[in-house]
Amino acid sequence: MPGNAFGQAFRIVTWGESHGPAIGCTIDGLPPRMPLSEADIQPHLDRRKPGQSRYTTQRREDDLVRILSGTFEGMTTGTPLALEIQNADQRSKDYSDIADKFRPGHADYTYWAKYGIRDYRGGGRSSARETAMRVAAGAVALKLLQHLLDDIKLRAALVEMGGDRIARENWDWEQVGANPFFCPDAPAADRWAKRLDAARKQGSSLGAVVEVVAEGFPPGLGEPVYDKLDADLAKAMMSINAVKGVEIGDGFAAAHLPGEENADEMRIQDEQVDFLSNHAGGVLGGLSTGQPLIVRFAVKPTSSILSPKRTVDRFGRETEIVTKGRHDPCVGIRAVPVGEAMMALVLADHLLRHRAQIGL
Amino acid sequence: MPGNAFGQAFRIVTWGESHGPAIGCTIDGLPPRMPLSEADIQPHLDRRKPGQSRYTTQRREDDLVRILSGTFEGMTTGTPLALEIQNADQRSKDYSDIADKFRPGHADYTYWAKYGIRDYRGGGRSSARETAMRVAAGAVALKLLQHLLDDIKLRAALVEMGGDRIARENWDWEQVGANPFFCPDAPAADRWAKRLDAARKQGSSLGAVVEVVAEGFPPGLGEPVYDKLDADLAKAMMSINAVKGVEIGDGFAAAHLPGEENADEMRIQDEQVDFLSNHAGGVLGGLSTGQPLIVRFAVKPTSSILSPKRTVDRFGRETEIVTKGRHDPCVGIRAVPVGEAMMALVLADHLLRHRAQIGL
Amino acid sequence: MPGNAFGQAFRIVTWGESHGPAIGCTIDGLPPRMPLSEADIQPHLDRRKPGQSRYTTQRREDDLVRILSGTFEGMTTGTPLALEIQNADQRSKDYSDIADKFRPGHADYTYWAKYGIRDYRGGGRSSARETAMRVAAGAVALKLLQHLLDDIKLRAALVEMGGDRIARENWDWEQVGANPFFCPDAPAADRWAKRLDAARKQGSSLGAVVEVVAEGFPPGLGEPVYDKLDADLAKAMMSINAVKGVEIGDGFAAAHLPGEENADEMRIQDEQVDFLSNHAGGVLGGLSTGQPLIVRFAVKPTSSILSPKRTVDRFGRETEIVTKGRHDPCVGIRAVPVGEAMMALVLADHLLRHRAQIGL
Amino acid sequence: MPGNAFGQAFRIVTWGESHGPAIGCTIDGLPPRMPLSEADIQPHLDRRKPGQSRYTTQRREDDLVRILSGTFEGMTTGTPLALEIQNADQRSKDYSDIADKFRPGHADYTYWAKYGIRDYRGGGRSSARETAMRVAAGAVALKLLQHLLDDIKLRAALVEMGGDRIARENWDWEQVGANPFFCPDAPAADRWAKRLDAARKQGSSLGAVVEVVAEGFPPGLGEPVYDKLDADLAKAMMSINAVKGVEIGDGFAAAHLPGEENADEMRIQDEQVDFLSNHAGGVLGGLSTGQPLIVRFAVKPTSSILSPKRTVDRFGRETEIVTKGRHDPCVGIRAVPVGEAMMALVLADHLLRHRAQIGL
Repeated sequence: MPGNAFGQAFRIVTWGESHGPAIGCTIDGLPPRMPLSEADIQPHLDRRKPGQSRYTTQRREDDLVRILSGTFEGMTTGTPLALEIQNADQRSKDYSDIADKFRPGHADYTYWAKYGIRDYRGGGRSSARETAMRVAAGAVALKLLQHLLDDIKLRAALVEMGGDRIARENWDWEQVGANPFFCPDAPAADRWAKRLDAARKQGSSLGAVVEVVAEGFPPGLGEPVYDKLDADLAKAMMSINAVKGVEIGDGFAAAHLPGEENADEMRIQDEQVDFLSNHAGGVLGGLSTGQPLIVRFAVKPTSSILSPKRTVDRFGRETEIVTKGRHDPCVGIRAVPVGEAMMALVLADHLLRHRAQIGL
Repeated sequence: MPGNAFGQAFRIVTWGESHGPAIGCTIDGLPPRMPLSEADIQPHLDRRKPGQSRYTTQRREDDLVRILSGTFEGMTTGTPLALEIQNADQRSKDYSDIADKFRPGHADYTYWAKYGIRDYRGGGRSSARETAMRVAAGAVALKLLQHLLDDIKLRAALVEMGGDRIARENWDWEQVGANPFFCPDAPAADRWAKRLDAARKQGSSLGAVVEVVAEGFPPGLGEPVYDKLDADLAKAMMSINAVKGVEIGDGFAAAHLPGEENADEMRIQDEQVDFLSNHAGGVLGGLSTGQPLIVRFAVKPTSSILSPKRTVDRFGRETEIVTKGRHDPCVGIRAVPVGEAMMALVLADHLLRHRAQIGL
Repeated sequence: MPGNAFGQAFRIVTWGESHGPAIGCTIDGLPPRMPLSEADIQPHLDRRKPGQSRYTTQRREDDLVRILSGTFEGMTTGTPLALEIQNADQRSKDYSDIADKFRPGHADYTYWAKYGIRDYRGGGRSSARETAMRVAAGAVALKLLQHLLDDIKLRAALVEMGGDRIARENWDWEQVGANPFFCPDAPAADRWAKRLDAARKQGSSLGAVVEVVAEGFPPGLGEPVYDKLDADLAKAMMSINAVKGVEIGDGFAAAHLPGEENADEMRIQDEQVDFLSNHAGGVLGGLSTGQPLIVRFAVKPTSSILSPKRTVDRFGRETEIVTKGRHDPCVGIRAVPVGEAMMALVLADHLLRHRAQIGL
Repeated sequence: MPGNAFGQAFRIVTWGESHGPAIGCTIDGLPPRMPLSEADIQPHLDRRKPGQSRYTTQRREDDLVRILSGTFEGMTTGTPLALEIQNADQRSKDYSDIADKFRPGHADYTYWAKYGIRDYRGGGRSSARETAMRVAAGAVALKLLQHLLDDIKLRAALVEMGGDRIARENWDWEQVGANPFFCPDAPAADRWAKRLDAARKQGSSLGAVVEVVAEGFPPGLGEPVYDKLDADLAKAMMSINAVKGVEIGDGFAAAHLPGEENADEMRIQDEQVDFLSNHAGGVLGGLSTGQPLIVRFAVKPTSSILSPKRTVDRFGRETEIVTKGRHDPCVGIRAVPVGEAMMALVLADHLLRHRAQIGL
């Protein structure tokens, strides 16, 4: 019942605080006889890793993942996969001056209100550190999707930073790996570099929008009513730290269209149903249409900034705070591989759930 | 595992098709010794009921709810509450000419792809008829919230129709009950009446945005990491028919703000933590802040429109379709009580989940 | 979380009290395109029905089951199946003199301790009436097993009454339908008739042991560690009213054997693994061996008897009670179809769970 | 959905094979601000540890548990508790000659049938090694029970070995810690020592019966219908390796009693309900009566014995096997602390589930 698990048939539980000895994850439900090793997971963690450019936090996290159970001779056994990452860089003292104060925009006050415990060492479970395990588990989910489906392709990109959107006509997936922002639009990446440099120097921060796209997911997957595929995707993305909005396909813009412009018409192409547009973002009635699944989510600007802010402490006293330390000026950047991972977890879970009821 | 249940500690399962003999819901987890009767539920169903103005479908649904178990002498017993509504108006023939065709924008094709069954009678489980049970269960959840919390207030309004937004400075909750759109801005309601009349006459339809607000929910409720309060709210709203986007607090607009403008500062007021703004929408780190919980969701325009659309049938043939029948020109209107109900279900569930782990 | 649901992939929720207007059940997870109608369920209910001989309660329960959703043109749709039985015979006054007293051996006191509500009308949810829905749901589970497996056979018998066991060498499945006790041993059935007549006349009651056998369940099904097939069967049987013990295969007798007599040796027969004995009862390490699954459970004697017993009432006063009314002198008899149903529910659930992870 | 988790509100997931680098467990749902350290867990592991007498396997397992997350300054934080034990003694070669053969009475064949993987290194997840994590998690559950309840006492004993039962009138809890069998009857312990020595020398093994008793668990806890307290206890015990039967209170013997002897009468003592006997074993209708909860389970004799047995290998060939290596001649002995642990897990879960719905 508590909130540290995700998925039903492909189910993960994560544990660990940013400043404990390690973080980890258990995956239950992974099919047996699937090739799997750390080499399938590590590259995804490396993409998320901080300290890769001046635009992400300079905290050093080696994030070397280790498989502790669930494989034998390079194959999954069908028993729980345990993943673990040692926490290498635990400079607790960075946080010592905020031990009693609640940082605005962070979960400090709400954790205190819920648990009555102030674990001031970097946010505990609410730290972005936890997303390393999402990425690790997502890599396993992606491997499973590739194992069971022929042509699944799952990618994400940053499509807006500080209110500056990419030009859709410039979209080039090759660019995503070529700049430090996962930006598919080269000119936008140049503009963002300047804006983010300026924000960083001012001790400010910027928000962003991430778009995740899955191609090759077959039609008819998902569940009706409450566990709709898009409902689970919305939950998955909204559960990522700092996310404040999620949309599918045209999303909020769909509310501006008249009905005749919004519904995607259908034709037959190569004996398959072919949609003439994809306003729906690949989901109708909670089930996949076979078109690309398209999800976007909004990430608020980092709350750890250099401007002093009014706040209170755990003794009920009014005070001020300046959040020093090593922080991302735009947490949205590192949310890109996290968004991919969450999409992979949702799709893997729904694939196995579908197989339970109906078979593949 | 299949998708017809919602919640964990306050758990509902719904059943029934739009054209079967009845629809129903079982609620497990309701505390005992709470006063409850049909009179607590019926008014909520009446607000959602179609046929109340020319802006909603003229289908007649009496929607008289009956409690079949779980109460004794006007009090809950702690055992499952069973709710049932007879389906009065089953004009199946309205749908007979679409028996083999897939309506664009509807779940017809995806249900066919998943289940291999074409239940053409009004959409089966994907019909908006299913939302009657969300409203009934939500009324019970609201009753529970009022039973356990002193000052909970849960309301919703339509804040945008066809791209035309209300003026926030005109917001008046009294107006919500005074026009057929649940619109809190009287001048906007007038504009919308004209636009929707025009759309209806043209056989077109409009999208909308609904805002749901809960006041008086205590700080520190929710779960960390995956079952964050906002993640569950996002899932809840996205699971409503025709919803394509969800946001919390400032939502997508938060991605445009610099960090120093987004974080909500804190002071002490009457020995309680008092926030100076509510960009966060009442949630930080997945836990409630004690401020109003504010969720918005986008509803696409009704897909049943009079313009002919290209589609295919279940034999793989290309064809055209015109969706006649009695349809809402703006399904967003009736989504207002549904959004309230989903918010109530999420809050009731998290309240009981919190009590399990920590007590109240 | 509350206890009115069973199963994960094939999941039922039941509702209804013995003296309310109806009882019902929702089944979520049923595959689509499986032929199903009331005629598949009713014969199982008829076997459980009271009032069929002088050895079971003379209460009249017509138990006519109705499918309210989840089928279309005689086939399952893959959406929730709702089953409902009207409660025909609600003679509440039979129970009026026990409104405040707790019947020894019944759940009266414990329900009061838990819920603080005294629903004196025949036990509420703790009534054996609830088992009608187990039988109805079990009939659907059996249908699913037959739909997906070639040669599944699931049967049960009464093997002991009042301490008098059948002779195993007399076992004849044909006899089970030929006497009012579901007894596979004709001479034992004759002895039991005399004993039970005597007990009934004295206002006493007898305990019994039920054996449930499933043949044709393939090897390798079940789950490791906590959700072992035998663990779920133990839970299923122990959850039946009045059951006090469960065993698999040799059960408690296995604890008397030395290791060399207990382990079942294996040979190859027709290219299949063939066990030379079945001490294990068809389960090793929580997974099926492919041999018959054999489960036995002990049912205590009916607690509603005519001898006066010391008890207390809900005002904390000491008193005496005589339970009049129409009661089974041996509730174990009617537990036979209930045991079959619970076995079917467990096997159907594990079959779908296995399919989720591994496929069939 | 897969079977490596237990509990709902107090939920554990375990991972790890007997011959991997480590085994571990994540506990989600633990309340915050409860004192907890490794010192609360280690003594329970030490009681289960093999190699403590000549009656248990001589395998060396240091079983030093480490808490990797979920505590801060000696208190629980309310976030997941991660426990880990390094596997010190991984002599894989002991098992090398059985790499292809299926050991009778073990899960070798059924794991092969399910997963298509032969992890021959000591049984993988089906190894009794897994029970170390049950004991560790159970120690945490016990700590929680003591934290929330005043006088909870939870103990277990071996009450039968190789068919030789203790004399109930000799029961002395002090004896349980004084002999290597957890036997409460000193003369029985002497007899068992001789029998087990003989069995061990012959390369044979003996079965046993364990009794677990919880005192001080309040009345009215548990759930109705499917998740009855006794149903969950039955599942918990049956899920322990080698267990073949479970009974509550009088258990199978209850089926021999007439109704007038079985029902426990009630009186008032110190303003509390006081039962005059405890045939029910502390549970009525799935809810606790407030009397001692009494559960017994039967453990089959160790299947790893020195007599050669007929079996088959994974290539479908008939062969013979002698299971050498270091094995317990009576696995029932080490099942005693495991039974305690499983009882603690069930009670902790039901306590939190009850608090969710009703409060404490």
